[in-house]
Amino acid sequence: MSKSNSSRKVLIVGGVAGGASCAARLRRLDEKAEIILVDRGPHVSFANCGLPYYIGGVIEQEKSLLIADGKLFRERFNIEVRTRTEVVSIDREKKQVGLRDLASGKTCFESYDSLVLSPGASPLRPPLPGIDLPGIFTMRNIPDSLAIKDWVKSRASKKAVVVGGGFIGLEMTENLQRLGVEVTVVEMLDQVMPPLDSEMAAMVAVHLQKRGVKLALGDGVAGFEQGASGGLSVKTKGGASYAADLVILSIGVRPETKLAVAAGLELGPRGGIRVDEQMRTSDASIWAVGDAVEVRDWVTGLEALIPLAGPANRQGRIAADAICGRDSSFRGVQGTAICGVLGQIVAMTGASEKSLKRAGIADYEKVYVHPGSHAGYYPGAEKIHLKLLFRKSDGRILGAQAVGGGGVDKRIDVIAMAIQKNGTVYDLEEAELCYAPQFGGAKDPVNFAGMVAANVLRGDMPVAHWNEPAGEGTVYLDVRDEDEFASGHLPSAVNIPLNSLRDNIGSLPDSNDLRVYCAVGLRGYLATRLLTQRGVAARNVSGGWSSAPAARNK
Amino acid sequence: MSKSNSSRKVLIVGGVAGGASCAARLRRLDEKAEIILVDRGPHVSFANCGLPYYIGGVIEQEKSLLIADGKLFRERFNIEVRTRTEVVSIDREKKQVGLRDLASGKTCFESYDSLVLSPGASPLRPPLPGIDLPGIFTMRNIPDSLAIKDWVKSRASKKAVVVGGGFIGLEMTENLQRLGVEVTVVEMLDQVMPPLDSEMAAMVAVHLQKRGVKLALGDGVAGFEQGASGGLSVKTKGGASYAADLVILSIGVRPETKLAVAAGLELGPRGGIRVDEQMRTSDASIWAVGDAVEVRDWVTGLEALIPLAGPANRQGRIAADAICGRDSSFRGVQGTAICGVLGQIVAMTGASEKSLKRAGIADYEKVYVHPGSHAGYYPGAEKIHLKLLFRKSDGRILGAQAVGGGGVDKRIDVIAMAIQKNGTVYDLEEAELCYAPQFGGAKDPVNFAGMVAANVLRGDMPVAHWNEPAGEGTVYLDVRDEDEFASGHLPSAVNIPLNSLRDNIGSLPDSNDLRVYCAVGLRGYLATRLLTQRGVAARNVSGGWSSAPAARNK
Repeated sequence: MSKSNSSRKVLIVGGVAGGASCAARLRRLDEKAEIILVDRGPHVSFANCGLPYYIGGVIEQEKSLLIADGKLFRERFNIEVRTRTEVVSIDREKKQVGLRDLASGKTCFESYDSLVLSPGASPLRPPLPGIDLPGIFTMRNIPDSLAIKDWVKSRASKKAVVVGGGFIGLEMTENLQRLGVEVTVVEMLDQVMPPLDSEMAAMVAVHLQKRGVKLALGDGVAGFEQGASGGLSVKTKGGASYAADLVILSIGVRPETKLAVAAGLELGPRGGIRVDEQMRTSDASIWAVGDAVEVRDWVTGLEALIPLAGPANRQGRIAADAICGRDSSFRGVQGTAICGVLGQIVAMTGASEKSLKRAGIADYEKVYVHPGSHAGYYPGAEKIHLKLLFRKSDGRILGAQAVGGGGVDKRIDVIAMAIQKNGTVYDLEEAELCYAPQFGGAKDPVNFAGMVAANVLRGDMPVAHWNEPAGEGTVYLDVRDEDEFASGHLPSAVNIPLNSLRDNIGSLPDSNDLRVYCAVGLRGYLATRLLTQRGVAARNVSGGWSSAPAARNK
Repeated sequence: MSKSNSSRKVLIVGGVAGGASCAARLRRLDEKAEIILVDRGPHVSFANCGLPYYIGGVIEQEKSLLIADGKLFRERFNIEVRTRTEVVSIDREKKQVGLRDLASGKTCFESYDSLVLSPGASPLRPPLPGIDLPGIFTMRNIPDSLAIKDWVKSRASKKAVVVGGGFIGLEMTENLQRLGVEVTVVEMLDQVMPPLDSEMAAMVAVHLQKRGVKLALGDGVAGFEQGASGGLSVKTKGGASYAADLVILSIGVRPETKLAVAAGLELGPRGGIRVDEQMRTSDASIWAVGDAVEVRDWVTGLEALIPLAGPANRQGRIAADAICGRDSSFRGVQGTAICGVLGQIVAMTGASEKSLKRAGIADYEKVYVHPGSHAGYYPGAEKIHLKLLFRKSDGRILGAQAVGGGGVDKRIDVIAMAIQKNGTVYDLEEAELCYAPQFGGAKDPVNFAGMVAANVLRGDMPVAHWNEPAGEGTVYLDVRDEDEFASGHLPSAVNIPLNSLRDNIGSLPDSNDLRVYCAVGLRGYLATRLLTQRGVAARNVSGGWSSAPAARNK
C-alpha cells in the first residue's frame, strides 16, 4: 500500500510480545494503516518464555518457538517486517527514525505518524572480573539459547552455576538438570524467588535441595576465573569458589531505554520509560509497551518494572487502540506470576508482604493454610501451601503466594480475579468453585483461605505468627496428638491434644501470651475457640507446625 | 453437659455435608450449646461425592469415605451423635421431635431450642413396571455403593444400563467401565448432562461414544423385565430393549420434605423446603440446609433446587451463625459444577443458555472459543471448548460451560469468581493470570474468551451462530486453507483462504448475509475485520468449524 492511500503510518520497534500484539491489533482496527515492524534480531514474535524448555529439550524444535514470521505478518496482516534492523536514532521533530540494516550496515530513514517502542529489557551483565570469559551466558533470545544448548552438548558440561535464583534462574536450573548438568544456584539475597516472601521461598529452597540443587544463598558473585583446562570457577564475595563448565547469569533485567533516553523521552523513578494509561510516552506521537516501560502496581499503587508477557501483550493492544483513537487504558500490573521447578509449582498474585512494607502499607494481616489440591479421600491430592495477605480494616485481598503441587495455578488465578474485582476474604469464603473429588474440595483451598482470614477479621480466631518474637510470658501449646508431638515440636511447647483439652483446661500453664498450634492450623483454631470461650486468652499460630521455621528440612 | 448449664439446645437432623458443617460450626461459635446430631443411616459426615469412585475402586478403602465419625464429634466437638435414628415427628408447639431408634424400634422425644433439618434428597425411583427387580440400584450412601460393588463382583456383571446421563450417571458410567462393565446410558432428553446446553453436551456425547459407551438419547425407560437366567432387560418407550446385568437409576433426586411437610413447614415453588437468606424455614425455630431446600439462582434470580456439596456446607455454617445470632446470609447458588468422565472434563458456572431462556432473559449473547490449555509451543496442551454467555447491554458475565482436558476446572473457577463479583467480559479480557508455557498462555483461555466477547460487544466482530437458520441470501465463506477445507466443510461454503482474501475481494459471491468461518474463529475474525473495513458486510461464525454441528463425529 502506498503511503498516500494510507490512513496513518505506524512504525513499531521490537517484534516480540508487546510489539507484535500492537502490530496485529493495529491491522485489525485499521485496514488502511501502513505498519512497519522492525526488530534487531532474526525473529519476530518468538516464544521467549519457552527458551529454558527449548534448552532442556522439552520443546524439541526451534520452529515451535516461532509463533509468527515475517511472511505471515506480510500475507495475513499486510505488515512489513524488517528483521536484523536496528533503530539508531529518533528525530522527534521530523518524526522519523534512522534504521540500520545489520547485514549491510547501511542506514536509511523512515518517517512515522506514530512510533511504538517495544525494545524489551536486557539481562544484567555486571562488570565483574572475568565476566566476558567464554561459557558465561545470559539468555534473552533464540540465538542465546542455541549457544547454551550447543555449549552443553559439545563440551558435555557436567556442572553449572546459575547466578540469580529468580524465575528464569530456576527454570534454567530445572532444564540444565534435565540435560544431566549438576547445578549450583548463587543468589545474593538470602532466599530464592525474590518476589516471594522469604518464608514461602524457604519451602522452594527445601524442595530444590531435595531435588539435588546446591544453593548458595546470601552470597554475591565477586568474579570469574578460567582454569588451565578451560573450566570456569565462580568466586563469591563470601569467599567461596564453585567450579562450573558453564555459568548462566539470571540476576535480572534492565529496561532497554537507550533509544528513549537519546530521544529525550522521560523515564520514571524506577528507570523505565514513563507512559500514561494509554501507553503514551512524554512525546504524544510516541508510545511504549512491554518490559521497557514503567507501570503502576495495581495493588500498592507504586511505579514498578514487571517484565511479564501477558501485560506486555495487553499494553501492545492498548497502544494500538489509542493510536486508532480508542479510549482503552491499562489498569496496571498485579504481578501474577508462576514458575514450575522440578515438580513444584510456585505462583503469586498481588502484593507480597515485603512489597506492602516497601510501600509503607501497614493495614494488613496474613494467614497461612496447607490444604490438599483436592479432596483427601480421593487419591493423589498434593499439598498447597498458601499465604494470603489482606487488609485488616476491610478484608480486601492484597496478595497471595502458593507453593505446592498441581492446582497451585488454579487457586492463584482465582485469587487474581478476586483481587482484580476488589474482592475481600469474605468473597473467597463464599466462592462457589468446581467440586468433584479429583478437582477440589467441598471447601476448596480458596474457600479455606478465605474462611481462615475471615475468622481472624471477625475476631473468632485471634492469630499469632511464627515470626513474632516470644516474650517473657509466652507459652506455646501444641494441641496435636502425642505421636505427632513426638515426631517434632517446638522445644518449649506444652502438649495437650485437642480432644482432651476440655478436660485439661485446669492444667494449662499460666501465660499472658498463650500461642496454640497444631499441624496446619485447624485444630489450633478449634482449641482457640474452646479456650477463648472458656475465658482463656489464646491465639492460634497461623499455618501451624507446617509453617514453623523449625519444621523446615524435616 | 447438662441442659441446665447449656446456652441452647440444637437438634440437627441429617449428619452429612450441611448438617455436619452446621454442627461443627455451632460448637466453634458456642462452647456451651447442647448439640445433638441424628442420622437415619449408619454414618455421619461421609464423602458422598466419592461413592462412584469407591465403586470403581479408585478409592480403595471404605474408611477413606468416612470424614468424621461419632467418636470424633463427641471427643473433639462435644457433640452427641445418634446414628440409625429416624426423626418421626416434629411438634412445633412443644418444640420437640420424636426419634425412633432403628435398631430397637423404640421411640423417644427430644426437645430443642433450634431444630436444623438437613435431610438431603433421595434418588428418584419412578413406579415403572419391574422397578423393584433385583439388580436395579440407586446410589445415595455407602450401603448402596457396597451393594452395587458386591453385585458386580459376585455376578461378574458384564453389561449395565445407566438410566439418566447427568453427572452421577456419567461418573457411574466411568466407574463401571473401570470394572470392565459395558455401559449403555439411556437418557430421556436428547442430550447427556442436562445442565449443559445441548451443543456443548454433544461434545461430551461424541467423547463417550469414542470411549465405548453406548448412548440411547431421547428415549425414556418404559419398564424392566427379568429373563430366565436372571438377567434384566430394560424396555424403552421408543421400543428398544437393552440387556443388562445391572441397572443404575440416576435420573435425578427429590428433596426429602416429608418431615417438613408433616410439620406444616412451607415449601417453595420447586418443591423444596422454603428458607430465607439465613436458612430459616417458615417456623422461626426451624432451619433447613442442603439438598432439601430451595435456593435462589444467583444469576437468574429464580428459585432452584441445586444439590451440591459446597453450597450445602456453606448453608450449614450460615444456619449455625444465625442460630447464634450472627447476621451471615446465603447469597444463592451459582451452579458451579464439574464432572470428569473417561478423560474428559466438563464444567460450568452460572446460567446456561437454556436457563436464561427459561428465566425469560433475552438480553444475552454468546461466544465459543477453542483454545489450548496452555501455550501451543509447549508439549501436551489439550483443547478447551468454552462457551461464554454474557449480557448484551453491559457485558456482565452470565455463565460459562467448558468441555476438554486439563485446565477446564481452572478456567471455570476463574469465571465463577468473576461472576460472583459481577464481572464483565472486559474484566476477563484484561485478567492477569498465571503464565508460564506449561500452565497457560500469554493470552489465557479466559482472556481469550473475554476478548472475543468484547469484540462482539464493541461492534468489532459482528457475530453469527451455527444455530441461526440460513436465509435466501446466506453465503458461508470458509477462510481456512485449501487442505483444511478439503478435509471437511459446509457443503455450500465458498473457500477463500484468509491470506489471499485481500486480493480476492472482487470474487466474493453476492450476499446479504455473508457468514465467515475458519477453524476456531480467529481467522474468521481477521477476515471479518478486513471485509467490514472494506465495505463488505460480514459476520464471523463464533467458534468456527470446531463448533459446527456438521463437524461433530469427524
